[in-house]
Amino acid sequence: MAEVKFEKISPADFFYRNRDIAGFTNPSRSLYTSIRELVENSLDACEVGRILPEIVVELQEVGEGSSEDVKVFRLRVKDNGIGVDAEHIPQAFATVFYGSKYGYRQSRGTFGLGGTMALLYGQITTNKPVTVISCTNKEIHEFVLRIDIVENKPIVLNHKVHENVNNWRGTIIDYYLEADYTNSKAKIVEYFKNTAIVCPNASLTFIDPKGRLYYFPRITEKVPEPPREALPHPVGVDVETMKRLISGTKSETLLSFLTSSFQRVGPKTAKEVLELAGLSPTINPKELNHEQLTALVEAVKRYKKFRAPDPTPLSPIGKDLLEAGIKAILMPEFLYVVQRPPQSYSGFPFIVEAAVAYGGKIQPSENIQIYRFANKIPLLYDERADVVWKVVSERIDWSNYNVPKGAPLAVITHICSLKVPYKTVGKEAIADRPEIERELTIAIRECARALKHYLIRVEKRAITMKRLNIYAKYLPKIAKFSAELVGRKEPPDVTKLLEKIGVTPELLEKIRLEEQESAA
Amino acid sequence: MAEVKFEKISPADFFYRNRDIAGFTNPSRSLYTSIRELVENSLDACEVGRILPEIVVELQEVGEGSSEDVKVFRLRVKDNGIGVDAEHIPQAFATVFYGSKYGYRQSRGTFGLGGTMALLYGQITTNKPVTVISCTNKEIHEFVLRIDIVENKPIVLNHKVHENVNNWRGTIIDYYLEADYTNSKAKIVEYFKNTAIVCPNASLTFIDPKGRLYYFPRITEKVPEPPREALPHPVGVDVETMKRLISGTKSETLLSFLTSSFQRVGPKTAKEVLELAGLSPTINPKELNHEQLTALVEAVKRYKKFRAPDPTPLSPIGKDLLEAGIKAILMPEFLYVVQRPPQSYSGFPFIVEAAVAYGGKIQPSENIQIYRFANKIPLLYDERADVVWKVVSERIDWSNYNVPKGAPLAVITHICSLKVPYKTVGKEAIADRPEIERELTIAIRECARALKHYLIRVEKRAITMKRLNIYAKYLPKIAKFSAELVGRKEPPDVTKLLEKIGVTPELLEKIRLEEQESAA
Repeated sequence: MAEVKFEKISPADFFYRNRDIAGFTNPSRSLYTSIRELVENSLDACEVGRILPEIVVELQEVGEGSSEDVKVFRLRVKDNGIGVDAEHIPQAFATVFYGSKYGYRQSRGTFGLGGTMALLYGQITTNKPVTVISCTNKEIHEFVLRIDIVENKPIVLNHKVHENVNNWRGTIIDYYLEADYTNSKAKIVEYFKNTAIVCPNASLTFIDPKGRLYYFPRITEKVPEPPREALPHPVGVDVETMKRLISGTKSETLLSFLTSSFQRVGPKTAKEVLELAGLSPTINPKELNHEQLTALVEAVKRYKKFRAPDPTPLSPIGKDLLEAGIKAILMPEFLYVVQRPPQSYSGFPFIVEAAVAYGGKIQPSENIQIYRFANKIPLLYDERADVVWKVVSERIDWSNYNVPKGAPLAVITHICSLKVPYKTVGKEAIADRPEIERELTIAIRECARALKHYLIRVEKRAITMKRLNIYAKYLPKIAKFSAELVGRKEPPDVTKLLEKIGVTPELLEKIRLEEQESAA
Repeated sequence: MAEVKFEKISPADFFYRNRDIAGFTNPSRSLYTSIRELVENSLDACEVGRILPEIVVELQEVGEGSSEDVKVFRLRVKDNGIGVDAEHIPQAFATVFYGSKYGYRQSRGTFGLGGTMALLYGQITTNKPVTVISCTNKEIHEFVLRIDIVENKPIVLNHKVHENVNNWRGTIIDYYLEADYTNSKAKIVEYFKNTAIVCPNASLTFIDPKGRLYYFPRITEKVPEPPREALPHPVGVDVETMKRLISGTKSETLLSFLTSSFQRVGPKTAKEVLELAGLSPTINPKELNHEQLTALVEAVKRYKKFRAPDPTPLSPIGKDLLEAGIKAILMPEFLYVVQRPPQSYSGFPFIVEAAVAYGGKIQPSENIQIYRFANKIPLLYDERADVVWKVVSERIDWSNYNVPKGAPLAVITHICSLKVPYKTVGKEAIADRPEIERELTIAIRECARALKHYLIRVEKRAITMKRLNIYAKYLPKIAKFSAELVGRKEPPDVTKLLEKIGVTPELLEKIRLEEQESAA
């Protein structure tokens, strides 16, 4: 008989064994993912406190690694965010599935996994502990930590408390990892560049192992409203969620439980739902039996009249900030930005922002350049698995918008939501939920139409200029010739006539200069 | 100050909140994923016991769901595998990260997640418990289970023991889920069809909600060698793995520890590694301090002379079985199958098998039809994110192999490994590890060359037939005419001459019939 061994493993152990699925596939991508996860935690820590982000990332080569391109690096990420309370530091940085991102709130991180995975990767490749320094507003705490992978818990090797003389606030992560910078450099620099587009109020500094400084200064001092935590929307609620809400409620009747635990549920809606479930509004929710609970959830599912989710907890980039970011980084000749009204999928509100940028510093290229963002982070891998690629490459026929193949064209998209439907834990590709696909298509089409008008205008202007050029050149000659023909010494003054049809004195002067040049 | 709440969640809770990343994205894909995960567990349970699989899947519609296409279904999957010991049943089916697939062994499942996720999805959509019936060889155990998501542990609602009168062995899973069959039917049927290609020794039955029976009979009685568990290969070992191996070893010296804990490490290699690490071979491994442990791992990393991983634990499909499977299901006119020699990536051995099938029942289509398999399971989603798509669409120029656009062409690939580098927990796309990409390219090119020769032969044969047709038609006429010219009554017998150049009596007969027809 075959022998089968059963085993239970901890979440840290699971991701240790399967780090590929969290984006740690090889030494180069792991470096990119590590930097990205830590920078995103830093940006979240600033945004939540309405702080203008000031982030410094330093990567130093400190030793040989297991192959030619793979070296040991020291990575240090410093921010000026709200800091982490000392009591939470060990767990927050050294426990998988321990985090502050599990609420019904928009944030860059969603899985409570990335930061710890970055440190875990450092530990298993170098066997060195991690230093975390953080301050919320009083004294500064410095921890030296190791992750117990089997138990999924932190081991505190050292804890010091420093006086905060300069009134500093923020977090510093300082640790070692084995990685490949040679083959990840391009992606990492692209990551910072694209982050600067969507976070124009952040100051980002990256010092690479060769000592090169990549500095993306703050372009605007505007601080967007931080995302707010919201009540869940009833659409998409299941028995498990209902149970949790009931166990957390202080309400003593079903009626008050429903209106206080969900958004978009007033007394009228609550009564209709309860009637559908065959439950009295006065029942204490904590006393529901199994069948009643199921009936309540079924009624919520069958009730089709809930208003769409409240979009106010969302924090889009905003047209102005997005425009400023794209102009500063891509420097296009034409730019059109759209922000769509809020929509929702399975109870989660979302907003699509999109832009089309053309010409200027954008290089012509065979494929349309796509810049994808979600909850204010750039997505750089697995482009073809993303819904944006599908829309740009398969849904939209660019020739309808006078865009030739190989044009210098970039499409920029941003999707913000309380829950971005990522296809992977590595947060690289967004699933093609029909509601999101539809909004993207509408938004990009609107941009494409604006581009079409611009391209037509440019073409028309070129034709007009050509025509005016001809008038400006030949009208004076015709005037002179006609004057000679009728025996007049002075030709009539055509300047007025030329001005009337749009030839400015400047254009006339330009043509005179050109003629002199071609004569010389 | 912003308020930040920290929270720790269980693995079951994590996947409950993020079921998208495990393939449970919407009611139609969730049904496909559920069936697939349970069938794959069944196939593994047969293979490990060298049993010819006999799997019956029954899907019944039992009630209305939350929208028009979404209904409540009862799903029942029955196999004749080795069964699960009663003491393990509750945990094996109702705990995330509890499983038998964590060893260094080839298996369909890899994450210890899929089966439990399928049942968890049923629970949260219907709030009904799950019935698991299993028998290893003695009495039959029947459990009624529920998953405690917050605690990640099973709740046993009922446990009965039945006498095993018919000497049955196997497992039955019987539960309810809310899902969409209308929009997943095509994928589910395709899944069974493709599974039949790679498991030609399995008998697969699917009874759909309309009572339609999809039956894929066993094509061969051959049972492949079951995958064996192997020692880890030293390449890719890190401090964490080294610690675990040391804590599990009975060896009292480093020398015997290394040779007994790793494959491909004999006394000579072990001594060289220890010399590189500056460690004496007689040290007790359990007494290594932190620095010595790191030095040992570093030495293993720097030692470049390990032999490639042992491929014998791998269980490929085999050329014969693959050929039989493809012939039975796709019924092509031409088929060429290749099995590449074993290779390895980061310490994991793998084998690539590939086939090109052309014509016959294969329909012409704009894109080449790709059938992807990994560890004997079909992969149906996210084709464009897979390394096979990259190779077929971007690496190989099919016009070099005389294959026109839109040809009736299918490419079939199978990758087996002790660890398939999936990009997602949903096991749909394989990462483009350079070693795997290379093997795939070589294998498919070899098939393509064989196809090219076949296509050239077909074309030549067509040209020859045309030429022979002309001879067969006109030689007799020329003979007759010549005879008349010289005044002979009977024309010379050209049959011998025709036979000499390859015109058979059958061909002559065929031409005669054709002439009669066109004359009529």
